[in-house]
Amino acid sequence: MFLGRVIGRVWSTVKTPSLSGQRLLVVQPVMPDGAPAGRQLICTDTTGAGAGELIYWCRGRESSFPFLPDEVPTDATIVGIVDEVNLKQPAENG
Amino acid sequence: MFLGRVIGRVWSTVKTPSLSGQRLLVVQPVMPDGAPAGRQLICTDTTGAGAGELIYWCRGRESSFPFLPDEVPTDATIVGIVDEVNLKQPAENG
Amino acid sequence: MFLGRVIGRVWSTVKTPSLSGQRLLVVQPVMPDGAPAGRQLICTDTTGAGAGELIYWCRGRESSFPFLPDEVPTDATIVGIVDEVNLKQPAENG
Amino acid sequence: MFLGRVIGRVWSTVKTPSLSGQRLLVVQPVMPDGAPAGRQLICTDTTGAGAGELIYWCRGRESSFPFLPDEVPTDATIVGIVDEVNLKQPAENG
Amino acid sequence: MFLGRVIGRVWSTVKTPSLSGQRLLVVQPVMPDGAPAGRQLICTDTTGAGAGELIYWCRGRESSFPFLPDEVPTDATIVGIVDEVNLKQPAENG
Repeated sequence: MFLGRVIGRVWSTVKTPSLSGQRLLVVQPVMPDGAPAGRQLICTDTTGAGAGELIYWCRGRESSFPFLPDEVPTDATIVGIVDEVNLKQPAENG
Repeated sequence: MFLGRVIGRVWSTVKTPSLSGQRLLVVQPVMPDGAPAGRQLICTDTTGAGAGELIYWCRGRESSFPFLPDEVPTDATIVGIVDEVNLKQPAENG
Repeated sequence: MFLGRVIGRVWSTVKTPSLSGQRLLVVQPVMPDGAPAGRQLICTDTTGAGAGELIYWCRGRESSFPFLPDEVPTDATIVGIVDEVNLKQPAENG
Repeated sequence: MFLGRVIGRVWSTVKTPSLSGQRLLVVQPVMPDGAPAGRQLICTDTTGAGAGELIYWCRGRESSFPFLPDEVPTDATIVGIVDEVNLKQPAENG
Repeated sequence: MFLGRVIGRVWSTVKTPSLSGQRLLVVQPVMPDGAPAGRQLICTDTTGAGAGELIYWCRGRESSFPFLPDEVPTDATIVGIVDEVNLKQPAENG
């Protein structure tokens, strides 16, 4: 998964029926230190995240798992809201 | 999903049978502000989108879901037409 | 899917049995205007495409659909030969 | 799979239920020589890896296999801890 | 699929059980002309390839097909050893 920040929302009337009722959020990928990193994308959401929140999203086939047995045609879904990121100094192996 | 603009169409007679009857649209990925972003691609379509329309597409395995039970060999499908993109200022977490 | 041009072929004796009998073509990704774009790759083929032909290929899990019920371990398959690409000027939304 | 080093952890209370009980580790991709290479990501874990350890992770649909029959919505999972990487001089084919 | 050269091996004791008995090879992606191209990765193997050999690998969900009915959590598998790559001059379409 990757970290991201919710920065907006997409409104859409004409869409494939299996996307009905899904919120579509605009996400800016960020690094653990909060710096933007990469191309903004559109995510479905399982968390109720709002604008400005730090989240992590899952991409690919697995991003549709939370909606099973519905086969939602999404390739990116917000699966959690971040409380805190702890970065540690790399230690020795083992 | 990613935002994109429909900029053309591909015509093809010789193709794998499961693609028969699918419109193949040329899509230019764009950022939420409308700026082009990345390599143009070929999408199947579930929305009836036409040239110039702002759409979002789904890639990967999920892009074939709208065609189930047909197993259409596509890796990118237009799943919605955009009415409006709202970008908000990032707020505080929570 | 992406556009590409067939530029060669790979010969291989030792391979996983489920690839037996598959032609392996070298493809150069191209833009709709024909310019090369990105890393050359190896594709299986469902179309009988030959060297120099403009094709489009599907990647990922879906690229193995045309071979079902065989589970061919391919991640890129040529699924059509291009007759013509029409690029239009972007029009207004709707 | 790719090599990486565990550099931190993400804490998250609000998440999709199928992620409950999963440790979420921050991983820095590295090259075989240990140099950082690419964007940090969030991985689930099957190995009990700790901060500083050299690991390899699997991405995509397969990254959820270790959790079957649970359908965990993850796209990156640590599947092993590295004891040693042996790099050899390329020899002749065959 | 992509071409690559086997340049090493990863040894690992602690790993997800479904990877037991799998050789893990370090692969340098290469272009058809042999030039290195992109980030080194770790592949499972179905061919018995050794250091220095020119191979092609399959990525994604399909890379686990050769191991079915085992659900091996791999996202990159060597599926063939290259005898020869023939590059041709692009000809006219058709």
